[in-house]
Amino acid sequence: MTHDTTQSTKPRVVLLGLGAMGSALARTWLAAGHPVTVWNRTASRAEPLRALGADVAVTAAEAVASGELVVTCLFDDASVGEALAGTDLDGRDLVELTTGTPDQADARAEWARQRGARFLSGGIMAIPPMVGVPEAGGYVFYSGTREVLTEHEATLAVPLGTRWAGARPGAAALYDIALLSAMNGLFAGVTHAFALVRDEEMPLKEFSGLLVSWLNAMASTAGSMAEQIESGDYTRDVVANLPMLVSGNRTLEAAAREQGVDYRLLSPYSELLEERLAQGFDEEGGTGALELLVKRP
Amino acid sequence: MTHDTTQSTKPRVVLLGLGAMGSALARTWLAAGHPVTVWNRTASRAEPLRALGADVAVTAAEAVASGELVVTCLFDDASVGEALAGTDLDGRDLVELTTGTPDQADARAEWARQRGARFLSGGIMAIPPMVGVPEAGGYVFYSGTREVLTEHEATLAVPLGTRWAGARPGAAALYDIALLSAMNGLFAGVTHAFALVRDEEMPLKEFSGLLVSWLNAMASTAGSMAEQIESGDYTRDVVANLPMLVSGNRTLEAAAREQGVDYRLLSPYSELLEERLAQGFDEEGGTGALELLVKRP
Repeated sequence: MTHDTTQSTKPRVVLLGLGAMGSALARTWLAAGHPVTVWNRTASRAEPLRALGADVAVTAAEAVASGELVVTCLFDDASVGEALAGTDLDGRDLVELTTGTPDQADARAEWARQRGARFLSGGIMAIPPMVGVPEAGGYVFYSGTREVLTEHEATLAVPLGTRWAGARPGAAALYDIALLSAMNGLFAGVTHAFALVRDEEMPLKEFSGLLVSWLNAMASTAGSMAEQIESGDYTRDVVANLPMLVSGNRTLEAAAREQGVDYRLLSPYSELLEERLAQGFDEEGGTGALELLVKRP
Repeated sequence: MTHDTTQSTKPRVVLLGLGAMGSALARTWLAAGHPVTVWNRTASRAEPLRALGADVAVTAAEAVASGELVVTCLFDDASVGEALAGTDLDGRDLVELTTGTPDQADARAEWARQRGARFLSGGIMAIPPMVGVPEAGGYVFYSGTREVLTEHEATLAVPLGTRWAGARPGAAALYDIALLSAMNGLFAGVTHAFALVRDEEMPLKEFSGLLVSWLNAMASTAGSMAEQIESGDYTRDVVANLPMLVSGNRTLEAAAREQGVDYRLLSPYSELLEERLAQGFDEEGGTGALELLVKRP
């Protein structure tokens, strides 16, 4: 009875898409006492949530009709278009958590506006086991119509923390993708490092502890890189200048060759620094090479 | 007077090479009361250390003759060969801190053996401002003749912490290079991330804080990667499988294109995962792709 009373005071969440992430979100909202309507293309995925108290809609249109706050957590942007095609979004707040590109989110925002819905895009910085576990530190970047976040903050903050990414609808996806891109660089470097030492004497587990400490120390320099980029002065606070870095990178490449490890994951970064040095920026560290990546109009 | 008494009880350090790192090492040993003999090809760099109490040798041979523990901190392995060419190393302990490749260290160890010296190779995981500052966490990988480290541990631990890397002389250089390689991957990813978001709404300094937290969380998975590699089972503890990773990477590449950012720094890692997936390892995460980097005999 207490459960019922609580439910009636909290807003309903309509959730489309019950993959691992969507299911985790639904469970967290249900546990917090929110009424939840779920829909999934493959209906069987809704059954575990029905057992937890969710209302299961047969069609996406029926789901959307049941509440004001509509959250999508689908495979890709095309799936969002398909799932919402036959629904009436007029007066709805659409919160789009599907991972897509920034331009897709921008276009989806306009598409939603034409259908009378307010639009909020989200980029989830978490994996399903982190949902509903505040100490795990997961959060969602939100962008688009800020009022949607403000008005639904109490509901949206139940599964994961919230962070404002900007008014551009695609901003959430962009910051999500920026962090994932940085992660891929990290993993590329770590993969190369393990390949270099895997047959040496030190146990890999011991090496991994040194690696984590080292990478944490190196990652902390990102704040100084941000200051360099914002100031436009890539020569400030330089620890090692480009000639030193380029010379050091040649040693890294030679060592990889000696160890029989392909240098392919790291060669583009080495080449980028060499290009920047060839342009005459001897007093810069590595950050200025960013200018070679950005195509200015 | 107290200073003189202390000096006489601590072993002399002979230091060849007075760049930023060599000079920092010399200052720390002098401050700790060790007698220090210094030599540098460009003699003027020795003057600040003479003022701090160092004995300045005119030739490398004279320096090497003055003490048992000879530390080299020179530009590259060729400089080591040149500097030591006219010296008598018989009975000396040679500690070689110059950054080179593992094979160069292996060869230098044999070269030292033929001249009657015991050999220890070091890989410095620190920048000069961290020398003599234990709380900064800098250390040196050491490899080669372990007795040299054991017998001189009290002296060698003065400027920076010590870590044993293995009996292969080249091991210290290899672990040094492995960490620097991982760092380059990290910096490549961070550079790409900044290029993606530099013109967006969120201040770069705020973004860098999120980036550091995210990268620290992601770096911590290196322990799990080490376990996968040691077990040979790349399907254990997989958070995202290869089909998910490859699909996600296509989104990262599309987003880069939209933002006008060259994807060159990250494309080799994307391609490596695609290759591994094409081999049929659908249930692996990213770690197994390491097998494609290692050329097995």
